[in-house]
Amino acid sequence: MTKTDIAKRVYDHTWKLDPIIRSLLDTDFYKLLMLQMIWGLYPDVNATFSLINRTKSVRLADEIDIGELREQLDHARTLRFSKKEMIWLAGNTFYGSKQIFRPDFLAWLEEFQLPEYELTRRDGQFELRFPGRWKETSMWEIPALAIINELRSRATLREMGPFALDVLYARAKAKVWSKVERLRALPDVRISDFGTRRRHSFLWQRWCVEALKEGLGDSLSGTSNVKLAMDTDLEALGTNAHELPMVLAALARDDNELLTAPYQVLQDWNIYYGGNLLIVLPDTFGTDSFLRGAPDWVADWTGFRPDSAPAIEGGEKIISWWKERGRDPRDKLLIFSDGLDVDTIEAAYHHFRGRVRMAFGWGTNLTNDFEGCAPREIDSLNAISIVCKVSEANGRPAVKLSDNPQKATGDAAEIRRYLELFGATGRIAKPVKV
Amino acid sequence: MTKTDIAKRVYDHTWKLDPIIRSLLDTDFYKLLMLQMIWGLYPDVNATFSLINRTKSVRLADEIDIGELREQLDHARTLRFSKKEMIWLAGNTFYGSKQIFRPDFLAWLEEFQLPEYELTRRDGQFELRFPGRWKETSMWEIPALAIINELRSRATLREMGPFALDVLYARAKAKVWSKVERLRALPDVRISDFGTRRRHSFLWQRWCVEALKEGLGDSLSGTSNVKLAMDTDLEALGTNAHELPMVLAALARDDNELLTAPYQVLQDWNIYYGGNLLIVLPDTFGTDSFLRGAPDWVADWTGFRPDSAPAIEGGEKIISWWKERGRDPRDKLLIFSDGLDVDTIEAAYHHFRGRVRMAFGWGTNLTNDFEGCAPREIDSLNAISIVCKVSEANGRPAVKLSDNPQKATGDAAEIRRYLELFGATGRIAKPVKV
Repeated sequence: MTKTDIAKRVYDHTWKLDPIIRSLLDTDFYKLLMLQMIWGLYPDVNATFSLINRTKSVRLADEIDIGELREQLDHARTLRFSKKEMIWLAGNTFYGSKQIFRPDFLAWLEEFQLPEYELTRRDGQFELRFPGRWKETSMWEIPALAIINELRSRATLREMGPFALDVLYARAKAKVWSKVERLRALPDVRISDFGTRRRHSFLWQRWCVEALKEGLGDSLSGTSNVKLAMDTDLEALGTNAHELPMVLAALARDDNELLTAPYQVLQDWNIYYGGNLLIVLPDTFGTDSFLRGAPDWVADWTGFRPDSAPAIEGGEKIISWWKERGRDPRDKLLIFSDGLDVDTIEAAYHHFRGRVRMAFGWGTNLTNDFEGCAPREIDSLNAISIVCKVSEANGRPAVKLSDNPQKATGDAAEIRRYLELFGATGRIAKPVKV
Repeated sequence: MTKTDIAKRVYDHTWKLDPIIRSLLDTDFYKLLMLQMIWGLYPDVNATFSLINRTKSVRLADEIDIGELREQLDHARTLRFSKKEMIWLAGNTFYGSKQIFRPDFLAWLEEFQLPEYELTRRDGQFELRFPGRWKETSMWEIPALAIINELRSRATLREMGPFALDVLYARAKAKVWSKVERLRALPDVRISDFGTRRRHSFLWQRWCVEALKEGLGDSLSGTSNVKLAMDTDLEALGTNAHELPMVLAALARDDNELLTAPYQVLQDWNIYYGGNLLIVLPDTFGTDSFLRGAPDWVADWTGFRPDSAPAIEGGEKIISWWKERGRDPRDKLLIFSDGLDVDTIEAAYHHFRGRVRMAFGWGTNLTNDFEGCAPREIDSLNAISIVCKVSEANGRPAVKLSDNPQKATGDAAEIRRYLELFGATGRIAKPVKV
């Protein structure tokens, strides 16, 4: 008998919607940690998230059908946390702690639904905004980005024949595996998957994470993707993001409150979390300024995540700061997460080895590196630099300066005001690829 | 590892065209036999084929998208016989004879392409016509019908979920298998698949034929589908159809030529074929009239295929005629092929057993019987009575009277003229289901 499952084939070929987001857990773990804090401390704050395509040369609205985009966003809005997911969130151990999520937060989360969105086209780009309560809009960041990126992949894949597709994925698998082989040559390296938002597709991310699990063994610390952590019994990893200082800065009533906002965030965080979750993200308004103004207790936190400075310069700066404050960097943790690939991981690993603990949050170049994989080169399979950032809070513009001026976001006048207050020292422009 | 073949899944979900006809051999064998004769004897005759939906209550053009229909018809026009197919046609033994197709015919066939078509919508139905040389248009009959029928299935299947589909095919398989069990209780019964034109889908027909092969063993004589015969090493079966007498009658220059046209066809046929291919199709203008006027040599032919009279009455009539002409019916073959299902096969088998050789060409009720299979009853999965018939030859109207007035086709005035000439005795109206 020719073994064709007719029912399956008919279903595959009469597909109505192939959902990109199938679970509210298909998001980064830090969103849930931040959400609990936002829900607890800032339940009435409004925060608008907006899509920003930094790769202007790619005209997203020409590549992606707006109708398909709406269908996917609408589908994501139909999702709720399932019972199994809620039980897992309540019962699982995260970062070594049980019951990291409070019962009243989980009760609220059970009813959670992604809020409405605003979508239009302009000049070949999408204007996609999520206005509303911060405790709701924050959850759009990851699914919105994953949807845009996967729709872009699909539009390209649609033009390819079955053998081209077979070769594409064969090469991409071989490429990931070559990277795994290089990484496992680094003793005790700690790698995590941070590739949800800009992944090629959900299934591809899953393949990559499972390949890392097999290939890296204990060197794979976990994944930021909560659903994949649950499904593959990996650690869910992640702490906090720029949106926290950005919103608190936007809400500041005067310059003094603005200057202390980055430290206020840490105090807020510490109400909810401790131990290995005490990771400082120092670059929102420039790492130099952050370190200069930081109270001494900041040096007691477990580690830093330099996210926009070059890894070695950024790491050295923080190590020096710890030493100035009389702390031993060997007790401390640096988490690198900015545009990493095997070369930069190897370089930082060899540079810092023995001097500080390190972890690498490997994102887009893990889950969306198809360069050289298509039978003929196709630009539209190359990842783009796309983010979904807070653009305003309670009606006031939100700003990110970053250690790399190319990654700054926000209203130009407001950026100037922030730069005057925080200073611009130590900021180094470098091209943003992803 | 979660075993998803990503490349296959992407291909399945970004399907562009899922062709219904993938090979020019995906047709009934009799079309090729007739084609060789038409090509040899009537190369310059024009014959228009037209789609006729006898199930008027089904508004085909509302159920099927005309754009999809065009895509499928256009795709069929891109097909050519492949080298493998040509080698098989030249080298295979058909009905016990080698080289049934002449080299010059095969050389011409190698270049064959389906000719253009005319398609419009009117009153919820399609007007689909194939004008042109008979030796080209004739080949549209089967693919055109298979396309229409499968597009209708697909439109319905599209509305069903994966479990509904799984259950649908599970029940349909169980149903076919129950029929197989009844049929294999009939010793030495001879069954052939005649279900190409009104099949639910190509894959489903393949499943049915392979199930019959396993379940019936030697009681499966073969299949009329040339591609399936080739792919599954079964006999390709079939002889000739109404289009031969219909065209010759339309071309007749006077009443006398018209009256002798049905016998002229047999003489033409005999130039090309002998032995078991000498099967008479007597009902084009009424079996009574045909038998009454038949020259004695017609009784020397191997058998008859009564195609529109009730099986038992029709068979008895032919047996009596053989006896009148001094032939022993036990040496003769009756091929039943009109709307058969297990009940009618069993009845005819028991009725005629030992008195005549029999074969059953089982069509639509084999390859398109989904009654009671869908989780909820869906009318649009029920097969309809649809044919693609010669409507004119060299600009003159073509007519079929049939033993069942419900199956008559052609211009009303012309039907009256034919009835006056051939007579109307022995015609019995019965509902035409498929």
